[in-house]
Amino acid sequence: MSENTGQPGAVVLLSGGLDSATTLAMARHAGCRCHALSFRYGQRHSVELEAARRVAASLGAAEHRVLDLPIAQLGGSSLTDPAAQVPRDGVAGGIPSTYVPARNTVFLAFGLALAEVLGAGAVYIGVNAVDYSGYPDCRPEFVRAFQRVAELATRQAVEGKPPRIVAPLLQMSKAEIISAGARLGVDYSLTLSCYDPDAEGRACGRCDSCRLRRRGFREASTPDPTRYQTPTEESHKT
Amino acid sequence: MSENTGQPGAVVLLSGGLDSATTLAMARHAGCRCHALSFRYGQRHSVELEAARRVAASLGAAEHRVLDLPIAQLGGSSLTDPAAQVPRDGVAGGIPSTYVPARNTVFLAFGLALAEVLGAGAVYIGVNAVDYSGYPDCRPEFVRAFQRVAELATRQAVEGKPPRIVAPLLQMSKAEIISAGARLGVDYSLTLSCYDPDAEGRACGRCDSCRLRRRGFREASTPDPTRYQTPTEESHKT
Repeated sequence: MSENTGQPGAVVLLSGGLDSATTLAMARHAGCRCHALSFRYGQRHSVELEAARRVAASLGAAEHRVLDLPIAQLGGSSLTDPAAQVPRDGVAGGIPSTYVPARNTVFLAFGLALAEVLGAGAVYIGVNAVDYSGYPDCRPEFVRAFQRVAELATRQAVEGKPPRIVAPLLQMSKAEIISAGARLGVDYSLTLSCYDPDAEGRACGRCDSCRLRRRGFREASTPDPTRYQTPTEESHKT
Repeated sequence: MSENTGQPGAVVLLSGGLDSATTLAMARHAGCRCHALSFRYGQRHSVELEAARRVAASLGAAEHRVLDLPIAQLGGSSLTDPAAQVPRDGVAGGIPSTYVPARNTVFLAFGLALAEVLGAGAVYIGVNAVDYSGYPDCRPEFVRAFQRVAELATRQAVEGKPPRIVAPLLQMSKAEIISAGARLGVDYSLTLSCYDPDAEGRACGRCDSCRLRRRGFREASTPDPTRYQTPTEESHKT
């Protein structure tokens, strides 16, 4: 796909996981010139940023930016606390400890800022409210509320051109996401979903995110290319 | 005022300027234990963070946090570009070049995150839509839209205790703000509003923010304690 300036611009929030990689592929398929945006925020799985870099390159993003955010300093999440344990083998319901306070609000705020600077017409985010961890900021009503903020907050909005907040995975199952991404040529071996990978980027196979991902591949009848830390994890039931 | 844990907690966004200092005084007057929150975001007037520190101490904030944010990297504002000129002596209307893309959305997102971690019931922000620079993210409808995000985005929201976004200055004139703050004991000599101060924190007297501030003191019939860069600035007409 050409990268002439006639393409509509889109900011795509890219974690390096399965969902955001698929979202980037969809934005590219929609004809957008994609500005991939990742964040280094003290996540224990910061190796995901390497995955994000590989995914951005592989899917033809026009650029890939990584911004440093002081989220871990605030505390409140096992995902940003090296001393905490990430839940494995299922959780008891409710919002899990891996939830990071207001993370998607912060990420979308920066996406909105970048969209304004670039004049981009959309901010893509790979949130999903079907096969997800129960985070409040992955729900459709949250996305709608942030859309309203986007329609008011910026110079673009005042000029009648607010960016759209696009969440194409919102109502899809993990299997549907995988099938759609595979059709668009996403190489899922480049992605990393695990909350607690080892230094080589191999997945634990047991955290919420691994469990949802593995079940998705199984339900999509698609081979799971994930590299797990131990061979026995691969047969672990989800 | 005591700082026992029975006080309701509030996060107060504190720039070190006149408006946010008054807002902090109001939150204290409302009986809140106040967590002042400032941002180092590449603003050319980063000396305002010293003002914020003085204001937080003087008004009895329980703590004062300063977070580093990568806003200047995004570009798009004369306020974060050392090579740009800040408008002086009035602007032509519209949104001025000092507007920083999505700044208040980013600041409120971090305020929301901190409120959640602390279990605070409110996020105070000193935005004002009367004597203001025309920034879109200072308008009442923007504050309402972000309130809706706060009601959905977080664990607090899911548990039925979302924080309120409190903007007590929204409909006040600058003179009314100054009069109210003076009654609450705000020492405005500690505050810094200027967009382009010198290294010693003295105001230029000519930027939008200086002009609104000076007119406010005059209309409030209150002596202006601002330190200006040159004596002649003090007689400059606003």
